[in-house]
This record gives sequence, C-alpha cells and structure tokens, in this order.
Amino acid sequence: MEYRKIKDQDKDGDAVEDDIESSHGKPPSGPINSVATLGASLSNRPKWKLKSIVTITLTVLTSSQGILIVWSKRAGKYEYSVTTANFLVETLKCALSLAALVRIWRREGVTEDNKLSTSFNEVSVYPIPAALYLIKNLLQYYIFAYVDAPGYQILKNLNLISTGVLYRIILKKKLSEIQWAAFILLWAGCTTAQLDSSSDRVLQTPFQGWIMAIVMALLSGFAGVYTEAIIKKRPSRNINVQNFWLYIFGMIFNAIAIFTQDFDAVINKGFFHGYSLITTFMILNHALSGIAVSMVMKYADNIVKVYSTSVAMLLTAFVSVFLFGFHLSLAFFLGSMVISVSVYLHSIGKLQR
Amino acid sequence: MEYRKIKDQDKDGDAVEDDIESSHGKPPSGPINSVATLGASLSNRPKWKLKSIVTITLTVLTSSQGILIVWSKRAGKYEYSVTTANFLVETLKCALSLAALVRIWRREGVTEDNKLSTSFNEVSVYPIPAALYLIKNLLQYYIFAYVDAPGYQILKNLNLISTGVLYRIILKKKLSEIQWAAFILLWAGCTTAQLDSSSDRVLQTPFQGWIMAIVMALLSGFAGVYTEAIIKKRPSRNINVQNFWLYIFGMIFNAIAIFTQDFDAVINKGFFHGYSLITTFMILNHALSGIAVSMVMKYADNIVKVYSTSVAMLLTAFVSVFLFGFHLSLAFFLGSMVISVSVYLHSIGKLQR
Repeated sequence: MEYRKIKDQDKDGDAVEDDIESSHGKPPSGPINSVATLGASLSNRPKWKLKSIVTITLTVLTSSQGILIVWSKRAGKYEYSVTTANFLVETLKCALSLAALVRIWRREGVTEDNKLSTSFNEVSVYPIPAALYLIKNLLQYYIFAYVDAPGYQILKNLNLISTGVLYRIILKKKLSEIQWAAFILLWAGCTTAQLDSSSDRVLQTPFQGWIMAIVMALLSGFAGVYTEAIIKKRPSRNINVQNFWLYIFGMIFNAIAIFTQDFDAVINKGFFHGYSLITTFMILNHALSGIAVSMVMKYADNIVKVYSTSVAMLLTAFVSVFLFGFHLSLAFFLGSMVISVSVYLHSIGKLQR
Repeated sequence: MEYRKIKDQDKDGDAVEDDIESSHGKPPSGPINSVATLGASLSNRPKWKLKSIVTITLTVLTSSQGILIVWSKRAGKYEYSVTTANFLVETLKCALSLAALVRIWRREGVTEDNKLSTSFNEVSVYPIPAALYLIKNLLQYYIFAYVDAPGYQILKNLNLISTGVLYRIILKKKLSEIQWAAFILLWAGCTTAQLDSSSDRVLQTPFQGWIMAIVMALLSGFAGVYTEAIIKKRPSRNINVQNFWLYIFGMIFNAIAIFTQDFDAVINKGFFHGYSLITTFMILNHALSGIAVSMVMKYADNIVKVYSTSVAMLLTAFVSVFLFGFHLSLAFFLGSMVISVSVYLHSIGKLQR
C-alpha cells in the first residue's frame, strides 16, 4: 500500500527531470550516471530516436519500479512515512535538475532559454499539477471506504480513459479512430490483466465510490495533460529549468503533506524512521522515473506515457515469473494480448492519420 | 452438455438452407414462415442489404439458441439421444430445401441452375464437411479426458483463429492488417468474456489435450471454410440444390452416428425418448440457424459468420440478465468491449483495404 502510493504519484506524472549531466567532481551512483550519459547525448539525435530512447527508458524504469514493489512486499512491511519519501523524491529530482543546469551554464553560458530566473507569468501555472496530485492523494484515503485495494487498482485504470479524453480536449491533439479504438483496448487489456477471483466485487462499488474514482481519474489525467501543456508551451525553454520549478512546488506541497499527515511520526520517530535499502532504491527509482516521465512529456506526449506504463506492467509480471516464480493467469495472458494489439493499432493508426 | 453438442455442430456451419418458400397449402409454423418470406424477397435486394439481413438473422437465431440452452439447463436435464436430434435437424433442413425448390420449379421451371440432378464431379465434395464434423464430434468425447467442460468452452475459441487462418489459405482471400488484429481481439474478447474463477485450470491442460483442441479447431475451421468454397464455387447454382446435397450427406452421417452411438437407447427407449417442448424448439432453432449459416456462406463469408456467432454470445448473455436474472461478470463486460471494438475494427479494416 505505502509503496503503491509513492508509485501512483510518480507514475501519474508530476515528475519532471531530464538532461541530467553529472557536474562536480563526485559522479553520482550507477543508474544516475548512465542516465546522465544518455541525457548528454540526447540533444544531437533526431526526434524519433529521442522519443524511442525516452520511452524505452520510462518503460524499463517503471517496470523495475513494479519489481521493487513486489520485492519490498515479499521482504515485509516497512513502517516509514510515505510523505517523507515523496518529499525526498521531489528533492532529489530538484537537485538533479539544478546539477544539470549548472553543467549547461558552464558549457553554454546563461541564455534566455536556460536561465533559472523566471517571470510570474511563466511560473504561475507550475504549482497546479502538484496541487492536483495532492488533492488526488487526499481523496485516495477516502475511496478505500468504498472499494478494497484490488478494486482500487482496477478503477485506477480509468486514468487511461481520462488521459485520452483530456489530451484531446486540452491539448487539442487529434487521435485517429483506430487510435481511439486502441485506447479503449488498452484500458480493457490492462483491466483484464489485473482480473482475479475477487475482481467482480468492484462492480458492487457504491455510487459515491464511482464518483470518487472518476474524479480521481480526471484529476490525475488533468495533472498529466497539464504538465505536458506547461512543458510544451515554450519548446525552446530548457527542460531542466521547467523541471526545477515543477519540483520546487512538488517539494513545497509534499512538505505541507508531511506537516499535516505525518508530523507526529516524524517528530517522535525521526524523518528517516523505517527506511531500508529497498526504500532507498525505490526513492532513487522514483526520481529517475520522474526524469523519464519529464523527457516523455517534452519529446513525446501523454499517450506515449500511458502506453509505456501499461507495457511496463506486463514487463513487471513477466520478469516476476523468473525472479519470484509468479504464475501468470489466463486473464493476464489475454490482457497482455489485448494490450499488445492495442500498441500495434496505435502505431498503425498514427501512420494512417 | 447434450444441447451444447447440437449447438456446436450447427454453429460451426455444416448447416445449409435458404430461399425457403412455403409451398403447398399448409404454411409452416411462425418462424419458418417469416424466414420464408425473407427468403422470397432476398433475391431482389442489393448485395450489402442481403448480407446485412442474413447476418442479423444468423445473430438473432444463434443468440436465441443460447437462450434455449440456458432455459433447458434451468428446466432440468433431458435424457434424449443427441444423435437423433442431430438427424432430425438435418432432415428438417433437407425437407425445407426441397420444399423451397418445388416452389421455385413451379414458378421458374427447371433450369440448369436449379435442377436437383447433379454430376458426380459436383456432388463428390459434398460429404466432406459432414465427415469432418463427424470426426470432430468423435474427438469431442475423448478431449474430456484432458479438460473439463468450462475449459473446453475456452479451448473451443481456437476455432476463431483456425477459421481465419484457413479462410486466408484455402479461399485465398486477404484480410487487412487491421482485420487480423481485429480477429485476434475477437478471440481474446470471446475468451475473456467466458473467464470465471476456474478458467485458469485450462492452462494445466496436458500436451495431448492441446493437440486435440488444435486438431478439433482445424477440423471445424476447415469444414466451415470448405463449405463456403463448395457453395461459392458455382455462384449461379441455386442455393437450395447445394443445401439439399449437403444435408443429404448430413443425414447419412448422422444416421451412422445413431447406429454406432445410440443404437441401444433408440431400440430400447424409442427414437423420441426424452423429447420435450424445449427439445422441439431447439431442433427447430437449429434447423433455422442452419438456413442462416448457409445464407451467410452464400452471400457473405466465414469471417462474417464468426463475428455473427460471437456477437450472438454477447446478446445471449445480455438477454439472460433480463430473462433469468443472470449477473454479468467484470470479465464478461471487458470481453464484450473487446469484441465490440473488434467488430468495429473489422469494418474499418474493410473500408481501408
């Protein structure tokens, strides 16, 4: 549950960081370093290559996130404060953005596009995604009065639909008929893959539960689409500056969450209470996934992000078969097939547009 | 189970009858009469209208077949011989073909296209579909050593795939990429819609079970595609003559089945032992469905037939909610969505060919 919560927040996309280049003497740990190298060489590549690289990176990071969650569940429950972990994720992303910027300034000098200072006009929209996620995460506490955890996982797939619809409405980008069909299939496939013997209970969700699920899906979809709109509004603006401001507000909102939700626990047991090696890995992974989400928003779009995270769900399960001896259900197999066809149709639909 | 068996045979398409026009003084009972009227006016309509009418008729008949099966199951088990029921279905279809032919001969006279006499060359291929179904039905007895009944229902969906592949290979008709994708989705959707808590057992099917299921799917797919090839080989040939010969062999093969499988039961308990009102309805329905399948083969194709019977499965379930207070599962709902998208993609795919 707790890990899941961090996961939600990042996966749904307020995470932004990219073009990280390790500055200073001490290089960061392995994965960050490789992303840094990746980031450094990104700017010279053609757009489709860039898009592919960031998409694959996001898929791999998200699926390893899933594997970390499975691992942590098997290792036992950790009683750390989710809000402090979220705060650290935001802080880490913010620090990485700043580090990348420092490197860029040294290399290229400060320009209009990469300067950190900004106008109120530019920065005024940046708190909105973070605020939306905060509201969504608060609602998450209350929806469990109406649905159980597996039911919530199924309802959460409504995010896919809301992202597609809001992408169309807010960003005014058209999807072809085949792509819409593919999108419905993606939703059906993801939900099918998650079916188990208790899934039918979700159909008994009371009206209030449905309303909350729909509102949460709209909030999360809106936050994702809005982030894309912010990042794409000024294409020449350096992504690290955009990230920096997004994450500053992420830090502020998560700090508020610590005070309102976990203040006593932090005071009594300490900020890092309950942290373990897995927790550290997860925070690192979430920060890196945030970087990848941001790259996808800048160089691709929300639709690609949604496909990427859905395929990551499949990858997580397949890898878990080998790592943890999981058994795949027939429902999972069928859902995977539908998702695969959906990915194929999405690409076909694009060509025919 | 028993009803299911009759259903299989007809649904899979050795059934042929169409253009029935009630001759003689006594008109046949309601449904037949309306099909007769339909048949009479079919020949003057443009092809797409004809295709739509026969497809809708097949869908409605197949779904009412499903409802009869549910009804009969709830009414209790009937201990009649399936082979005698199959024989009566074939005989009824044969009689209806003949009746339609007599009417046509009176109106138009005997021509090269509607004469009943035939060459060995023409008629020599007609026993093949009936023989294939006989083999398939025999195999059906043995596959239950490896899978249970719900598992068999799931494996039976392999028919969809085999029909598509054999349709492509034997009839050399191309499906567009989108239509292939739609076909895979149709399979996944039908299987998803049938999922229940015991479905995962099908994954434990031993190797022999899989081989038998695949062979049965190939036999059934081959029989369907072969029937279409026979009927379409001479487009000007009157469908009733083609049906007559197909059904004659159907009668012969089912007579053999009575002797080999149910001879003792028929001798000791009588031919009509265990028949009830529902049995009569079912025989009537199967004969009429046979008519519809034949029409679809003549004026549309196997692919349309497969879609039609899949949509019928959904209709059956929806109607059962109102008639019998069935609860639809989430899996059924998801499967229905995937099937609906598949139907849509199939039609879209056709336009783009």
